[in-house]
Amino acid sequence: MSQIILSINAGSSSVKVSVYTFSDSDATPKSIASVSLSGLTSPPTKLTSGKDTKTLENIATPNEAFSAILSHLTSDSSLPQLKDPSDVSFACHRIVHGGGYSAPTRIDSDTYYHLEALSDLAPLHNAGALEIVKAVHAFIPKCTNVAFFDSAFHSTIPEPVRTYMIDPAKAKKTGLRKYGFHGLSYAFITRAVAAHLQKPIEETNLIALHLGSGASCCAIKGGKSIDTTMGLTPLSGLPGATRSGDVDPSLIFHFTHDASKPSPGSSEAMHVTQAEMILNKESGWKALTGTTDFGEVSKRAEKGDESAKLAFEVFVDRVMGFVGSYYVKLGGTVDALVFAGGIGEHGVHFREEVVARVGCLGFEIDRGANEQLQDGEVVDIGKQKDGDRRVLVCQTDEQTEMARQCAEDADNLRRPA
Amino acid sequence: MSQIILSINAGSSSVKVSVYTFSDSDATPKSIASVSLSGLTSPPTKLTSGKDTKTLENIATPNEAFSAILSHLTSDSSLPQLKDPSDVSFACHRIVHGGGYSAPTRIDSDTYYHLEALSDLAPLHNAGALEIVKAVHAFIPKCTNVAFFDSAFHSTIPEPVRTYMIDPAKAKKTGLRKYGFHGLSYAFITRAVAAHLQKPIEETNLIALHLGSGASCCAIKGGKSIDTTMGLTPLSGLPGATRSGDVDPSLIFHFTHDASKPSPGSSEAMHVTQAEMILNKESGWKALTGTTDFGEVSKRAEKGDESAKLAFEVFVDRVMGFVGSYYVKLGGTVDALVFAGGIGEHGVHFREEVVARVGCLGFEIDRGANEQLQDGEVVDIGKQKDGDRRVLVCQTDEQTEMARQCAEDADNLRRPA
Repeated sequence: MSQIILSINAGSSSVKVSVYTFSDSDATPKSIASVSLSGLTSPPTKLTSGKDTKTLENIATPNEAFSAILSHLTSDSSLPQLKDPSDVSFACHRIVHGGGYSAPTRIDSDTYYHLEALSDLAPLHNAGALEIVKAVHAFIPKCTNVAFFDSAFHSTIPEPVRTYMIDPAKAKKTGLRKYGFHGLSYAFITRAVAAHLQKPIEETNLIALHLGSGASCCAIKGGKSIDTTMGLTPLSGLPGATRSGDVDPSLIFHFTHDASKPSPGSSEAMHVTQAEMILNKESGWKALTGTTDFGEVSKRAEKGDESAKLAFEVFVDRVMGFVGSYYVKLGGTVDALVFAGGIGEHGVHFREEVVARVGCLGFEIDRGANEQLQDGEVVDIGKQKDGDRRVLVCQTDEQTEMARQCAEDADNLRRPA
Repeated sequence: MSQIILSINAGSSSVKVSVYTFSDSDATPKSIASVSLSGLTSPPTKLTSGKDTKTLENIATPNEAFSAILSHLTSDSSLPQLKDPSDVSFACHRIVHGGGYSAPTRIDSDTYYHLEALSDLAPLHNAGALEIVKAVHAFIPKCTNVAFFDSAFHSTIPEPVRTYMIDPAKAKKTGLRKYGFHGLSYAFITRAVAAHLQKPIEETNLIALHLGSGASCCAIKGGKSIDTTMGLTPLSGLPGATRSGDVDPSLIFHFTHDASKPSPGSSEAMHVTQAEMILNKESGWKALTGTTDFGEVSKRAEKGDESAKLAFEVFVDRVMGFVGSYYVKLGGTVDALVFAGGIGEHGVHFREEVVARVGCLGFEIDRGANEQLQDGEVVDIGKQKDGDRRVLVCQTDEQTEMARQCAEDADNLRRPA
């Protein structure tokens, strides 16, 4: 019998829900609908489904957002499989910070409290998703909620790589170590690229770049993460649209004397310092150029705008540095350098520039292929079309990855009757 | 006529003074004596000169320390050139943070106030040196004081590399950017290694590692720094004996709620937050193993001690990562990988491990040469003895570098009569 999965990705001001079906005889989930709701924190709220967009009123909370999406889906005549909320078997939730969790985990009351506790480490990132878990539980009481952690893929990072050189007792007590994020994306990339290369996953070595408004790199050895640029939180490593990335750890104390103070909007449940707000929300290329859209930054840079050129060059510099670093960590055995995420998929000039700068490692761009991407989940844009050191673009998809992992392990994940 | 230079290196609890002579006919300074005084903040205070060590009482301030060293030098019968403080022509001061200064600078009242203002950026590092400047001015009023900045060598780092992606107005106003340190050491290394390779400095490309209780890497292209691991302050980049190195910029707020508060011992003149104390003074391999001595860490690691193995591996991991990064930034054209500093000079097993891990870049150790270092300022420890990708050990010497730069430019630096 066919079952329905909702794959839910809740950001700070948006909620995306993709609907999949799968059956016992075919565990590969098929996407049947996708709805997103944006503008939660900056009305008007808009609901987008396929090519249609409508404006909604009185939607301010994740609970209201999920309710609106669910109404939309169950009243959609083109979705006969989903007429009633109770038709949904699984809700997959992307949770950014999974602490020590290394696999998808069914959310019951115990795990829910664990997840709430984890939010202390990443209040800016986990809070929205937990609100949605509550909403799903309220609206679809019989459905199985499963947490998919963006940190889980990185649970294979060796201890010396994930250890910060700080007081180990304190680090252990508070869980202060490198976790890494974008793990659903890297899991998707690893599987999709291995298939494209026709290699077993456990023999696939990649330097993968997930570059969007949040950006990171990952060194993947034998299909497993051995290092990544994000750390305790998504703040460290590469800069992003509004994120500083790595800065001198003492910088913020020279930026403001109020670094430790709670930021406006902090609450007992969500303690965020001014430092974290400044470095997560008021930095990155937006601080340098005024726009969060890296495509716009790139366009302005090509026209000679000085701030945009600087922002573009900073990002290239940081990315090429990590590519070099991960090349060494992979012992120089690299099947492919993979671009993914919004900038990875669309940044034609950016990809060209990065590949040129890491040319000494043996990567080389095919300008034609880079400028006119072929269709496909994974496409070649490098001169090498077989063997190692290929350059690829991958259309990564975190929601599909959750649905795939959910369907694959449905029997274990399903909540006991 | 022969002139005398004092090269002074003031740490937080020690002062080292080396004495050099040079003349108009021979601008290469000759070392004639060296004295160090340690234990300033942890009595007993000890004065070491050559092989002799004596314990001194009532020495608690940099002023008293310099006074004691000067008395010792002027009463030393083996130093007929230095019988009276007024025999000293130049005092060279190693100043860690030089802000925008890109060259040695005579210290007069104006520059002194500039240097005091700079201390805001690096109170933990500059304060001691400025106390010594005052002491020299008091005891040798006619001598020329020259500031040598550890950041100056890095003034060639391109703007995108030194820019943090934070609010640019704030960054400009407060001077928040990458500066880099260990510059006197890197200047020494560049000159000494270029001579060893028989290449012009301006054609010499190096990945240089200055690894001591403070540790950094530097990418040197055509004799100039194009990137380095330390940043706004010496805290970022590699870990050190008591320094965390790079950590997620939000980590400290999960470590302590008091991150922004002044640390005990802070004063109006020297504002240091608890965060900076924790990350600079209570972290690093001491936090993991209990010892600041990396030789001891390495020894314990080889015997199987788990904490020591972890600390050793963390340091290897971070160093190899930066070597990969800088290899790419140099476009793969690297004459040599250079080890310097206490760990660089003495860490036989450490060097072997690092070189093995970056073998994919073409570096290869000569185990015999690595275990039994030849005599010399610069020695080969790699399999390649000519051409590029050599592996070298350099006995760097910041005091000699200051004396050399001072003698070379004595006429410009000398204070007007």
